[in-house]
Amino acid sequence: MNRTFFIVGGDLRFAALADVLAENNRVFAVGFDRTAAMSDKVQTCDNVLSAEERADCIVLPLPASADGVTVSTPFSGRNVSLESLTHIIKENGVVFGGMISPKVREIFENRGITVFDYAQREEFAVMNAVATAEGAVQAAMEELASTLSGRKILILGAGRISKVLIDVLSGFHTDITVAARKCSDLAWAKVYGCHGVRISGIDDILSGFEVIFNTVPAVILDENRLKRIDKNCLVIDLASKPGGVDFETAGMLGVRALWLLSLPGKVAPVTSGKVIADTIGNILSERSESNDRP
Amino acid sequence: MNRTFFIVGGDLRFAALADVLAENNRVFAVGFDRTAAMSDKVQTCDNVLSAEERADCIVLPLPASADGVTVSTPFSGRNVSLESLTHIIKENGVVFGGMISPKVREIFENRGITVFDYAQREEFAVMNAVATAEGAVQAAMEELASTLSGRKILILGAGRISKVLIDVLSGFHTDITVAARKCSDLAWAKVYGCHGVRISGIDDILSGFEVIFNTVPAVILDENRLKRIDKNCLVIDLASKPGGVDFETAGMLGVRALWLLSLPGKVAPVTSGKVIADTIGNILSERSESNDRP
Amino acid sequence: MNRTFFIVGGDLRFAALADVLAENNRVFAVGFDRTAAMSDKVQTCDNVLSAEERADCIVLPLPASADGVTVSTPFSGRNVSLESLTHIIKENGVVFGGMISPKVREIFENRGITVFDYAQREEFAVMNAVATAEGAVQAAMEELASTLSGRKILILGAGRISKVLIDVLSGFHTDITVAARKCSDLAWAKVYGCHGVRISGIDDILSGFEVIFNTVPAVILDENRLKRIDKNCLVIDLASKPGGVDFETAGMLGVRALWLLSLPGKVAPVTSGKVIADTIGNILSERSESNDRP
Amino acid sequence: MNRTFFIVGGDLRFAALADVLAENNRVFAVGFDRTAAMSDKVQTCDNVLSAEERADCIVLPLPASADGVTVSTPFSGRNVSLESLTHIIKENGVVFGGMISPKVREIFENRGITVFDYAQREEFAVMNAVATAEGAVQAAMEELASTLSGRKILILGAGRISKVLIDVLSGFHTDITVAARKCSDLAWAKVYGCHGVRISGIDDILSGFEVIFNTVPAVILDENRLKRIDKNCLVIDLASKPGGVDFETAGMLGVRALWLLSLPGKVAPVTSGKVIADTIGNILSERSESNDRP
Repeated sequence: MNRTFFIVGGDLRFAALADVLAENNRVFAVGFDRTAAMSDKVQTCDNVLSAEERADCIVLPLPASADGVTVSTPFSGRNVSLESLTHIIKENGVVFGGMISPKVREIFENRGITVFDYAQREEFAVMNAVATAEGAVQAAMEELASTLSGRKILILGAGRISKVLIDVLSGFHTDITVAARKCSDLAWAKVYGCHGVRISGIDDILSGFEVIFNTVPAVILDENRLKRIDKNCLVIDLASKPGGVDFETAGMLGVRALWLLSLPGKVAPVTSGKVIADTIGNILSERSESNDRP
Repeated sequence: MNRTFFIVGGDLRFAALADVLAENNRVFAVGFDRTAAMSDKVQTCDNVLSAEERADCIVLPLPASADGVTVSTPFSGRNVSLESLTHIIKENGVVFGGMISPKVREIFENRGITVFDYAQREEFAVMNAVATAEGAVQAAMEELASTLSGRKILILGAGRISKVLIDVLSGFHTDITVAARKCSDLAWAKVYGCHGVRISGIDDILSGFEVIFNTVPAVILDENRLKRIDKNCLVIDLASKPGGVDFETAGMLGVRALWLLSLPGKVAPVTSGKVIADTIGNILSERSESNDRP
Repeated sequence: MNRTFFIVGGDLRFAALADVLAENNRVFAVGFDRTAAMSDKVQTCDNVLSAEERADCIVLPLPASADGVTVSTPFSGRNVSLESLTHIIKENGVVFGGMISPKVREIFENRGITVFDYAQREEFAVMNAVATAEGAVQAAMEELASTLSGRKILILGAGRISKVLIDVLSGFHTDITVAARKCSDLAWAKVYGCHGVRISGIDDILSGFEVIFNTVPAVILDENRLKRIDKNCLVIDLASKPGGVDFETAGMLGVRALWLLSLPGKVAPVTSGKVIADTIGNILSERSESNDRP
Repeated sequence: MNRTFFIVGGDLRFAALADVLAENNRVFAVGFDRTAAMSDKVQTCDNVLSAEERADCIVLPLPASADGVTVSTPFSGRNVSLESLTHIIKENGVVFGGMISPKVREIFENRGITVFDYAQREEFAVMNAVATAEGAVQAAMEELASTLSGRKILILGAGRISKVLIDVLSGFHTDITVAARKCSDLAWAKVYGCHGVRISGIDDILSGFEVIFNTVPAVILDENRLKRIDKNCLVIDLASKPGGVDFETAGMLGVRALWLLSLPGKVAPVTSGKVIADTIGNILSERSESNDRP
């Protein structure tokens, strides 16, 4: 690509991202004083304004900003103001960030700077599903006193994470049932060798499972259903808020239930950084393609 | 389900369909005099009007009618007029058919009869993709003088058939590259262990493949590209018209290229019949669910 | 089976074993006072001699005895003397144990009691390879900051554990090379989609791997070879003593190297107990089959 | 390798073998006048004695000779006498052949020429199992009116071919039961996600299967058992003589039973030729290694 990137703030994922981008670009990392994880090709840079160059691209973390004013920098402690970034970017520069609020977006767009949210891209979600599925499998292995091989598993939902979970589990020879709303999702489950059941009918089939993975962001496993699952069943909830499990009731009933959020950054920060780098690469490719058209 | 079905015309798939439906319903098969493929539970019925009962459901073949007036009955030879079917259906009966033309639809809807096209359903397409993928793999095995195991394969397109093809091939340990337009499709290809390449850039990577499966219904492999593929490469085109290969040029260049259409009915008529039965079952379930609502 | 079993000592595996056997037999568990893991069907029994029945079968742990005189009982603390067990067994009873020393074997055989070592059985080793492989994969996931998906992996050795490891990893879409001595083992590796390399030639190919699993019980990764592997490579040694890695040198070179022993009992005690139960069941079946013969 | 090879006689496999060897060696092919399958690098040679060079290695077909006197040459018609070959080989040359009879072996060994039977090598059998398994799957697909996906399958025997068959079928999501004699073989079947049943107990479980693959060279499916299998069940016998099926009775009972022999040469001659080339390469490597030792 051979551009000048400023990576501003973020956790280990963004240190890994800086490394990947530095293979083909000049990369300055702001807010990473305390980590040694990055290669020599990345120039750490204490004060944004001290950099000798202006940025073609600025990369903000995920989320881009918690307060709408500054960028969080867990590796240095000194937060960076979003406003200051508008002074270090070239005229036709681009800002990338994850889960960018309208307020943050405005700061840049008001100055004519283009803003892209990499977390909105479909391929970002697809690639991250691998780390989420692996993290879920790792947690199941850690919790179970049995092998995963041979277990009877229920997966609630049939989206990206479910699909990858089915794939990751294929070498473990488990017996998987997928519960979903749409007939086509159940058809896919069967294509991949799973049993399929309408989610409206799960009350009758909840017993007998040894692990339940939930991916649906709605309280599917309420008190009524938690009472129907086996007492030794392990429940792993991968859904974003409000989650799919009534955890309070689960606790009272003695059901082991884990709520695992933001797994990619936790279990595979290096891969997550590469995923962001790939997504940014895709956005830049599409942009130059469309610029080439008359 | 326990309804009265009339299966009117069609090939082996519809004989299989009659068998499946007869497990839980009364089933009359019209236009199947010459085949003995069906179980005793199915009553064959020479003349539509001679049946002692009226139909809850009529099932037409795929396509429902070639001429807009009659139903094709390859197993008896005497075509059945669509108009005659309106007399044997109950007042709130339902007609199912595949690829129903507006003209055929009108014949029934004008009389207040509900019409469903099972071939329009997403789960129908998903389930049929299995037979298509298996048929493609079978053809490749028949054509190749090598094992499939170890082959270098290119799949053009990343839709349903491609996804199932990747899955079916997983036990053969081939080396698969997927060419697709969308970044998210390429991300999926990588999730499933394939290489991914933008379809716009395939000119540069066409050499070295031993089998190419096309699923894109547009002439991807034109003269320019056919000249770039290896001379022993086998090309299997699964795309509907116009197909993805310039077959005339392929012939002149000595490229082995097969165009395989309508595989499910050819390689797996029994499974195809079950797929139609499942799809009809889904439509009837959804209908009774929505009728139950106040 | 409907026999009377005495399970004497052992860890969680033997509590699980007692549970499984209790489904079809009378089971007394000796040395399990402090655990509540067993079902109500198992009768815990403080003093061996207090049991109202004599045993058809006695099951000793793995290893059967550390000192050749007593059985270790981690869940009660009061060790049981092997000699005392000879008084509670029926005349034609059978003793099962794991890794039974000649001295322990003599104690029983001198009194005409038949002794079987379940740990010597091939199916025992095969079934345990699943827990070992899963434990190795779990450890790799815990250690890596990347997903397992996409990693370049070297497996040293081509025995049972390697074969299962390749299978468990199949859903992760890794790139596996197997190093082995025999041509037929390398042929098997290729059948399962791996690269194969003669172990005598690994010096030249050690760089570039991100994870190395060793299964060969000989120091394969000596100083010379440890210097050739990538500095971020994770080494997981699954071989019994002396292990396959020069750990001291690995430590000095900063290579992350884990030596994971006895994984089945640690990561999957319940499955391990079932494996012992299945193996004992096989021995008893074969015994009654051969007794049936004239 | 850079040696001089004479490929004498044989079918398409040996044309492919000549091609592979010609990449790194001088190769003369005797008895291939009528085929154009070979690359320009292979020199076809009408009369053995007319060659300008003497051979380091002579490769005979599989079987090496049907009559003990001549080599069969289906592609030219003029058989070559084994005796004549002793005149074109260098002093320390080597003869390779498949299923070499003692009589043929003597012809060469009496003159001090070393003889190797590549068909005796374990890796040869392992690599050929892939073509056999693929051929069996291809035949099943051709015969069945259903998809392979979802079928209930019985595999008799648990050797190489069974193992590869299970692997090839993994992407089809079938439901496989393996019948075998040894407990360890049944353990392996379960590791790979199959059901396992002792072959002595199959009488009770034969019904319900849709495809049966036999790999055991003994008449397992006799009249009694053929009567117990489903009337639509497809039987594919892969065992060498006497085969595993009473075909006469199968015919009378209307059971579809295919006996598929020598599949590698039929369904994948090119791969089979490479397998022979790889095996010969292994033999030569081992030979030079052992010669290097003091």
